[in-house]
Amino acid sequence: MTQDIDFDRYDRIRPIRWTGDALELLDQRKLPFDVEYARCEDSDAVAEAIRLLIVRGAPAIGISAAWGVVLAARQVDAADGRQALERLEPAMQRLNAARPTAVNLAWALARMRRVLLAAGADWREVIAREAQAIAEEDLAANRRMGAMGAALIGEGSGVMTHCNTGSLATAGFGTALGVIRAGVAGGRIAKVYAGETRPWLQGARLTSWELQQDGIAPTLVADAAAAHLMKSGAVQWVIVGADRICANGDTANKIGTYQLAIAARHHGAKFMVVAPSSTVDMDTPSGDSIEIEERDPGEMFAIGGVRTAAPEIAAWNPVFDVTPHELIDAIVTEKGVIERPDAAAMRAAFGS
Amino acid sequence: MTQDIDFDRYDRIRPIRWTGDALELLDQRKLPFDVEYARCEDSDAVAEAIRLLIVRGAPAIGISAAWGVVLAARQVDAADGRQALERLEPAMQRLNAARPTAVNLAWALARMRRVLLAAGADWREVIAREAQAIAEEDLAANRRMGAMGAALIGEGSGVMTHCNTGSLATAGFGTALGVIRAGVAGGRIAKVYAGETRPWLQGARLTSWELQQDGIAPTLVADAAAAHLMKSGAVQWVIVGADRICANGDTANKIGTYQLAIAARHHGAKFMVVAPSSTVDMDTPSGDSIEIEERDPGEMFAIGGVRTAAPEIAAWNPVFDVTPHELIDAIVTEKGVIERPDAAAMRAAFGS
Repeated sequence: MTQDIDFDRYDRIRPIRWTGDALELLDQRKLPFDVEYARCEDSDAVAEAIRLLIVRGAPAIGISAAWGVVLAARQVDAADGRQALERLEPAMQRLNAARPTAVNLAWALARMRRVLLAAGADWREVIAREAQAIAEEDLAANRRMGAMGAALIGEGSGVMTHCNTGSLATAGFGTALGVIRAGVAGGRIAKVYAGETRPWLQGARLTSWELQQDGIAPTLVADAAAAHLMKSGAVQWVIVGADRICANGDTANKIGTYQLAIAARHHGAKFMVVAPSSTVDMDTPSGDSIEIEERDPGEMFAIGGVRTAAPEIAAWNPVFDVTPHELIDAIVTEKGVIERPDAAAMRAAFGS
Repeated sequence: MTQDIDFDRYDRIRPIRWTGDALELLDQRKLPFDVEYARCEDSDAVAEAIRLLIVRGAPAIGISAAWGVVLAARQVDAADGRQALERLEPAMQRLNAARPTAVNLAWALARMRRVLLAAGADWREVIAREAQAIAEEDLAANRRMGAMGAALIGEGSGVMTHCNTGSLATAGFGTALGVIRAGVAGGRIAKVYAGETRPWLQGARLTSWELQQDGIAPTLVADAAAAHLMKSGAVQWVIVGADRICANGDTANKIGTYQLAIAARHHGAKFMVVAPSSTVDMDTPSGDSIEIEERDPGEMFAIGGVRTAAPEIAAWNPVFDVTPHELIDAIVTEKGVIERPDAAAMRAAFGS
């Protein structure tokens, strides 16, 4: 399967550019209308970009944070990695606090800490290499996941995705969208549906744009229309990313994912989660222990500056939900495919 | 129960005003920011207002169409009702074609035809009285449904609704929102959640505004967040309206209703459909025979004139979906409550 896929064919977009002295982030708040990179010259600018959703998607946030540490290092003097770590810790804490749910953020920072602890006088080069490695490993992992995930899909299938899990959310190629890229490239996927993903409309603004840029024509559907679409038999697989995968396979992902999983099971469509193993958090036993980030209710009241709701009403704006492992048919990481995930299968794949 | 409810307390909005020589329709495209009535002086203006969604909601459409016939009569000369009917038929056909799914439209026109056939030289007065009766009966039916539906709800419940089924969608008080008004007035409902209802955002724009105007503070939630909300135990009943109820209880309603019904069943929340018996179509055996109206995909690409999706992508924009009767716990019409509706229960209530 892997050798049949032309990985470059449907993959051109790169959201994160390291220039050697600054981090350039494709401003995803402005897509699909303006294609502009925001320039971050210090680690607090990176933290702010994460907080403002200029960069989004768990893997892309982790990669950005790693480069944020490299930027922070420019303001620190230290004889060795251990001393540098001590002095970088405040900046790393601020990076870590920029988004509470995405486990990749903490994971990337932990990698940077680990190499710093072992580094000598060349600690600056060590962390720059590590940040580069995190980005390159992510792209390689995505291609591998794409091939493995696509292999689960039958010829001529229709698939539905949610939010944006593509090149825009990663170093490139994407997680769930990587499976879709690979599935289209390998001829298995005939039709791609993208859910709008209110309130931020990542599906309408980002996934649709990204797929179209890369020659895969998606059909946009309202989040509320997904079950009706599935009833028609148009969807064989729902394919989504993850912000955190728990030790029992429960998966936190963009609000609306859980609703799609329920609808998929109801209609006999399969449900696939695609995420790098850095998203797996074996220290969180189940979805019950995940704190769900809630954002400003004001995000529900306006779109592109245009007010869309009655003034002064209340709103509830959770960013994620948790899909229980019972509703997931396959979890795909770069380490392999876990079918019908549960605590035992996850332990076998990822240790305890 | 009925005598405990102060029906006027939470009900002030009226979307349809007959002035004696024109029909004034509250322009629901402009709510909640501008409260403006559009003036229709002939029946084609009414048909256009229905087509453009200036007036919406199945009962309100039926009432508007009835007044549309009264306006058409002003351009017709006839000796008796039978002759008038013949001459009014083209205008009535145009009214009927304005929205294909709403059965109330055809139902209201059928009532106008019936009284015309029996009318003599006073046919003009007869149809004006009939249009007035349709509106008054609708308000009375809504209050009766409100009382009966609210009686099903336990004290201190949380309820969720979809789209707008309120005073704005009817002569007044509303269907599903009538149950919610009555439930709040009677102390049974402690919390009301309104789904946004993409792509037209009737929940955000209309339901939120209407409830707030009437002193019931709703909490707005994204359509995709409904299942996550239900998982928290916050919702005891999902309460929705209907555009058409089939002979077996299958119910066509705003896109997204079906997805809510699946999620409600998954979480043990109850699902109630509230609609006047004019919505019941015993000639349609099941939801399989309903033609689902699809609107311009362009409605998915912009909100309030602001483009929200990638340019030149495809979209699928079905207006309704069908909730199978197996997922419905109660259908409430002004004739009574049908619990666990199926073909036999519907036949017992409405004949064959």
